[in-house]
Formats: sequence, C-alpha cells, structure tokens
Amino acid sequence: MAGPAGDPTAGSDFLQLDIRQAPRGARTEWLAARLRAAIADGTLPVGSRLPAGRVLAAELRVSRGLVTEAYQRLAETGQIAGRGRAGTVVVAAPPPAPTDPAGPTVPAGRGGLVDALRAVPCRIDLSPGVPDLTAFPRTAWLQAERRVLAALTPGDFGYGNPQGAPALREAVAGWLARNRGIRADPAEVIVVAGVAQALWLLARVLPEAGVRRVAVEDPGSLGAREQLEHSGLDTVGVPVDGAGLDVAALRASGAGAALVTPAHQFPTGVVLDGERRRELLAWAAAGGLVLEDDYDAEHRYDRAPVPALRALLPEQVCYAGSVSKLLAPALRLGWLLVPERLRDRVVAEKRFADLGNPVLAQLVLARLMESGELERHLRFVRRRHRRRRDAMLRAIGSELPGARVHGAAAGLHLMVTFDGAGFADTDLATAALGLGVKAHPLSWHRMRPGPPGLILGYAAGPAGESEEGVALLGQALRVLTAKPSAPCRPGPSGT
Amino acid sequence: MAGPAGDPTAGSDFLQLDIRQAPRGARTEWLAARLRAAIADGTLPVGSRLPAGRVLAAELRVSRGLVTEAYQRLAETGQIAGRGRAGTVVVAAPPPAPTDPAGPTVPAGRGGLVDALRAVPCRIDLSPGVPDLTAFPRTAWLQAERRVLAALTPGDFGYGNPQGAPALREAVAGWLARNRGIRADPAEVIVVAGVAQALWLLARVLPEAGVRRVAVEDPGSLGAREQLEHSGLDTVGVPVDGAGLDVAALRASGAGAALVTPAHQFPTGVVLDGERRRELLAWAAAGGLVLEDDYDAEHRYDRAPVPALRALLPEQVCYAGSVSKLLAPALRLGWLLVPERLRDRVVAEKRFADLGNPVLAQLVLARLMESGELERHLRFVRRRHRRRRDAMLRAIGSELPGARVHGAAAGLHLMVTFDGAGFADTDLATAALGLGVKAHPLSWHRMRPGPPGLILGYAAGPAGESEEGVALLGQALRVLTAKPSAPCRPGPSGT
Repeated sequence: MAGPAGDPTAGSDFLQLDIRQAPRGARTEWLAARLRAAIADGTLPVGSRLPAGRVLAAELRVSRGLVTEAYQRLAETGQIAGRGRAGTVVVAAPPPAPTDPAGPTVPAGRGGLVDALRAVPCRIDLSPGVPDLTAFPRTAWLQAERRVLAALTPGDFGYGNPQGAPALREAVAGWLARNRGIRADPAEVIVVAGVAQALWLLARVLPEAGVRRVAVEDPGSLGAREQLEHSGLDTVGVPVDGAGLDVAALRASGAGAALVTPAHQFPTGVVLDGERRRELLAWAAAGGLVLEDDYDAEHRYDRAPVPALRALLPEQVCYAGSVSKLLAPALRLGWLLVPERLRDRVVAEKRFADLGNPVLAQLVLARLMESGELERHLRFVRRRHRRRRDAMLRAIGSELPGARVHGAAAGLHLMVTFDGAGFADTDLATAALGLGVKAHPLSWHRMRPGPPGLILGYAAGPAGESEEGVALLGQALRVLTAKPSAPCRPGPSGT
Repeated sequence: MAGPAGDPTAGSDFLQLDIRQAPRGARTEWLAARLRAAIADGTLPVGSRLPAGRVLAAELRVSRGLVTEAYQRLAETGQIAGRGRAGTVVVAAPPPAPTDPAGPTVPAGRGGLVDALRAVPCRIDLSPGVPDLTAFPRTAWLQAERRVLAALTPGDFGYGNPQGAPALREAVAGWLARNRGIRADPAEVIVVAGVAQALWLLARVLPEAGVRRVAVEDPGSLGAREQLEHSGLDTVGVPVDGAGLDVAALRASGAGAALVTPAHQFPTGVVLDGERRRELLAWAAAGGLVLEDDYDAEHRYDRAPVPALRALLPEQVCYAGSVSKLLAPALRLGWLLVPERLRDRVVAEKRFADLGNPVLAQLVLARLMESGELERHLRFVRRRHRRRRDAMLRAIGSELPGARVHGAAAGLHLMVTFDGAGFADTDLATAALGLGVKAHPLSWHRMRPGPPGLILGYAAGPAGESEEGVALLGQALRVLTAKPSAPCRPGPSGT
C-alpha cells in the first residue's frame, strides 16, 4: 500500500523520502516540498497524522531541528497544525486544479489532444513518454553547473553559436558513438529543443528539398503527425505490422520522406526487423529521405541494442534524439543530424527560431555526458524502469484478462489491445479518468480503424503506482463492458 | 594600460581578477579559466611572466596552494612553464580561430551580416547589444538553482506549460509593474526564448490578423528586419528623426503593424517624444498594431524612465523584452505580451516551435526577480555601464574629432555619425577590423542612404577596452581619409 491509511503514524516509508536526493544546503526546503507534494497528491490526506519529528529525523538520518523547521513551514502556510497529544495533523490540502463540473472526458476528435489531456489533473498518470523523474540527478546536475559557471569566460555568456555549443556537440557525437553506433563529426550535430523542435525544423526545409508529403507510421505518434501537418506538410499513414513499417506500402504512398521509430516503434513497441531495414534503406538509397525519431532507444531490457539507421546511410537519414527520456522533458534539449546538403538551411531556421538553445544547460549536459555521469544515471533508471515494467505486466495479467500486451521489451511504455472488443477506447480512457487514472487511448495514435487499446507508461510514477493504476483500469473496463454495447467490430490492424 | 607590457610582474591588477566572482568550491577552476582567457585574448602574451604565486595569492586573498594548483593546470595543457629564476612564463597561446587569409572584411551587402561579423575573431569587440558579462551573478544564479532543484516536484521535470512556468510569469508581471509601468496579469505573460523568438512568433500570427506589411524604423535593427522578412512579411522603412518615428510617414506607409523601440530607439538612441507617442497611440487606436521592442529600457543614465507604450494601450500593443541585456544573451529567456485576441494563437506557435522554454532556468530567473537580486544586479551594472559610457565619450572627443554622438543617455551603445564625410562606413569598419576592433557600420541598419557612421557598444568589455578600441578606430579613420576618396555625398537622414 502506498498510502498511510493502515497506520497513519508509521513513519516515512510511505512518503518514499530519500534524503540523498536532497541538494546539500537546502534539505529543509527539500523536505518541506516533498511533504507538500504528498499532501497535494493525497498520500497524506486531510486528517492524517505526520510522523513524529524525532521518528522522521531518525529514519532520514537528519537532525530533529531540520524536520521541525520543515513542519514549521507547512504550519505557516496552513497545511498542517499541532494537535497536542494527537501530534501534527494535515488540516488543509492545496486547492485542486479546476476541472469541468461535468467531469473530465477524453475526446475522440483530433487536434491538441495530448496537450489537453496533459492539463487535466489526475491521481495516477500513465501517459507514455516520461521517464522516472524522481531519479533526476539533482546533485550531479548542480555540481556540473557549478563547474561550468566557474570555467565560463564572459564571452560564453554572449550570443552563442545557433548550431549549439561546441562542447555539447562533441559530447553528443561521443554519446551517439557509444550508445547508438553512429559515427558523427561534432560539426554535424545540431543542438535543438527536443525532438519536437527537430521535426519542426525539418518541416521548414523539406519543401525546398522537394518533399511535400511525409509518410508516418500507422499507428504512430499523434503529436509528431500534428507537428508535420501544422507546418503545412501532407502526411500519409503507412501500416505497421509485427515486423515494423510496411515498406511496400511506403513505396506505393508516393511520399518523399518517411518519419519512423525503428528502434522501438511508437506506440506498438515493434522493432523494425532485418529485412524491413534493408528494404527501407533501399527505398532511401533510391531517393527517399528517412526521418529517424530515436526517442527512447536507450531504454531496453530484454533485447540487444539496435543500431540507428543513421549509422548506415547518413546521406539519406535525418536523425533526432533528446534527453527527454534520459533525464527530463523539462530540459528541452536534444540533437539533430541531417545530411550535409540540408545542414546550413536547418541551422538557419534554428537561428531564426530562437538564436540557439540556452548555453548553460548545454554545457552542463556536455559535462554529464563526458564524465560518464549520464551513462551511470541511465544504468540506474534502466534497472528501476525494468522493475516497474515487470510490475505492470503482472498487474495487467491479473486485472485486464482480455488485454494483449505489445512491445514490452524496451522503452518506457507498453501497448495493450482488446482484440475483438466492441467498445471505444476513448470511452475506456474517459471512464479511467473518472477514477483518477490518465492513459492515452490507442485510437488517438491511429489513422485507420483497429481494435481498441491503451498506451500505458510505467516509468514515471513511484513503485506501486502503475499496479494501482492498472487495477483501476480493470475497474473502468468492467463498468464499461457491463453496459449494453454495439456489436463487436474488430479492425484490420495486425499490431 | 590594460596590458602587462609596462611591468610584466606587477601582480594581478591588469588581469582584472575579482575572487568574489568565483563560485564557492570551484575557485581553482575559475582562476585557471581566467588565466587561460587572459592568454587567449593577449592580456598575457607569449613570453610574459605570471605574477609569483605568493603575490597573486595575497592579492586575491586565497591560499598559495590554490594558485599553485591553477598554474599547474595551465602547465599541464602546455600554456605556461616554469623558467627557474625567470619565474612562470607564458609559452603558448591557444591557436587563434581561422580567418580568411586575405584578412576579414565587413561586407556592404545584406543577409546574415550580424551573424557573420559575430563569428569573426577580434581583439576588441564594440558590437552593440551586449551588457557587462563579467558581472554575471554566478553565485546568486547557482544559489537560486540549488533552491529551485530542492523544491521541484518530479512532475515539474515533465512536459511543462508551453506558455511558461507560472512562477516566472508571475515574477515577470511584478518586474514589469515595478520597472516598466506595465500592469499585466501573469496569465497574459508568454515566456519566450528572447526578443528574436518573440518577433518570430508574432510574424507567424500577423497574417491571420490581417497584417502582411510591417513598418520598421529607419535606421532600425537589421536583425529584427531580417527576422520579419524571413517569415514572409513585407517590411517598409519609416524615417526616424530627433523626436523618434515619423508617424505621418507611418500613416502614409499603409503598414498594418509597426515595430518600434520607443524607450531607446535602435540604433539612434532617440526617445520617442510626448507628441509622437500620442500620434502613434492614435494610429494604433485606429487599428494599427504596435510591436514594442523594449530591448534595453532598463539601462538609462541621464534621464527619467519612459513608461512602455504597452502600459497605455494593451489591446493594440504587443510588448517584448528579455534578460539578454539584463543578465546575458546566452540565457535565451524573455517575455512577450500580446492583445488577448492573439494570445492563444501565439502560445500555439510557441508550443509547436519547442513545447516551451526549459523549466529550470525559468524558475531560477523567477527567484532572482522575486528576491530583489535582479534589481540589485541591475543597479550594480548600471553604475559600471555609466562609467564605461563616460570613458568612451571622452575617447571619442579626443580620438574621433569629426564624429557626432547620438543617443548616449541610455542603453548599452551609442551611435556616431561622420556628417558630410565621403567614405563608406563599411570601409571604416573593415579598416578597424584589420586593427582588431569590431563595430557595426551604421549603413547596415539603414534602408535609405545617409551619412556614414558606427554603432559602438561600450558595456561588454573590461574597463579601458573601449578607449583603446576608439583610439584604434581613430587610427583606421586617419588611414581611410588619407586615401583619395569620392566627393562628399551627405545623406538626407536627420538622426
């Protein structure tokens, strides 16, 4: 159990506090923030008792004064109060974010869906694409930043190179060589604000390169498709099956470029198999442009790494990656490699868009990459993600008996389909949201019809959360399928 | 004298070292970096002697071991060497950036000029628009970041609000109220990657608002004009005279929007006077859209602050500002206010461009604004900038006798014109670059012809540098005007 219901004075275990995450010199602030978060998310509901100061201090191995001070801060903002013999009690939760009085719904239409859902409050968020954020290496980041600030010359604080800081471009080249089998010169690396900006920059230059229609995977990322369409490009869906993108269908589509996720297809989790890789590269060698979105390739559990397509055909493959799944999406920091003939134009677009990424964070990331700190972090979160995936798989087995699981060997999410079921997955997602659980309906990421399904992220939440989330999904599913429903209408998708 | 030529073992004075700028825990690294920079920029030329370790340690009030360690690092990279009784001597400078073998030239054409010049190496950089970067508050920044990292919840590391972190939007609203007379609700503030991105976002939505032609000031910022034109908008120059933008000419131009710098016109330094402000606001009230670029309004010396136009007519004024001139351009962080009817569209464009600015730096800046640290910093650099401006004015008086100075009461640069002179200012800038001094020719920022001139930034360099730069400009001018030249061709500009 993640909550304190069983024993409200049990101590700090249920709070998941790890004092090693607290930056030195700001541990009081850290503890107060953690307690506030626990009150906000219901871990410490109104009326529950906080652990006695001396108990929490002993468990965290900090001074009792530090705990008293943190409690004092929450008392000042009216969230907790001393109740004599009853100890210290939660008296008020922060006001919840406003919601629609009729309750949140998950729409079946299109346009900004992912953003809209992101803004809806919930208790358990199983949205895909977010790594374990409690593991963000705060101390290592701050140490690296201290060193960066010490070594910066005044000129480094001025207008930088729009293509990116040379130190980061070099570090990224090393990272790609070690982790993705790509040999790139630092001069080829363009630093961008994440894969979303990489796609946006590509969309600006593709028409000049003769490309107006881009093939996207179906199912495939709704956000990426919206990104391309917003920039005025046509998109055409190409089916994905158990071996990956159907290259024959790509050939028939007439598209000049293809956006693909070969290492871990989103959302199905399929790895593009050897024969399809060869076919796709032959299509590219004959003039097609591959846009390789390598969004979470570093996270794999039960299979060998798959080298990036970029490694094999650099003159026909644009390659984008980021730290969003390695460290945190909030950093807005990634990289883009493009064929040499497109590079100057892409850098010019980056320059006009924002004059280049902020310099400090670039140099901090370069240090974390060069020092091996980022690889250590990756090994650490990989173990943790694997445990959470296994827990979610067990929960699906017991709570969602009709669900088929896809693509669990890598990444930060898995996909379930309810083959042959007759309900709409947006209705299932809406029912789940009513129970406090957020998940993407598969139909959002589909262009052709197919069986209902859900995309379930397991990496972001604390241990135990995804099991609880899946149990609530099971509850939503039982409510939904108990209703009279339309006759079963299975779709043609083979994923 | 800034160099050690007079007394090569005089100590640390000529190095402009201030140990208070060194972040705690990384002072050795800081000292080594400063010494490396001094070798790179010629302050410590090859063959010069470093101060004895105990002398430098005493002057900086640090341990001798710290200085020894810093020297050791430079010895390891081959830049300095012990020479027995001769002390420690600079033996190698880092290789200079590659330059064209025929020598750099300042082109008279257009397109990416500012960027091209930025990439050219030089010894003294008088480019406009850069504050004193040695003053960047490294310690305060790092302390604020420590607190931010301590208080962040895991969710804060995820995908953020594309409009900007609520804490920063609130802090910016307070900043604008205190410093620019603008009353804005935090919900109106859009966090952007500097004024360049603000213009870019506006350019994306103006056509939908019925605006395809934008008036720009003449003279006016070349970079801003390029930004608008790159986005497909037409620009039309409207003359600036001693009272600011000629609003009658604006009316006649047929432009639907006008990009203006009313608080400190770039590059002339003129303040839009009371009558012109009224005329411009009347033009806006009749349907014109004002794009107010408030790029350096916080820096003023000899005059009262001028409230922003946005304060008077929020429904017809878009307002953009940034920390580029307050703290450092490398942070790529600014703000944009737009009339309510445009806000959702601008935020949508920001979302597609990069999903929002990186979160950490937003929260750090919010803390610096809320704590008063940023205002303290502004007061500190304002005093320093004023001294440097006064020094440059004195140098111009003695070294450039034919030059007329414009707009010195505020900002980070001044403009000089050589009224009635017959040379091209690009030739003067080229001759100066040959002597190691970089400055923008005025003609770059003009659309109609006018007298030659230069834009001279005085804020960025260390004390003494701008005087030396102006002396070299005087030398370049004498060389240029000694040549046989075309007959004098004064232009019509009244600035």
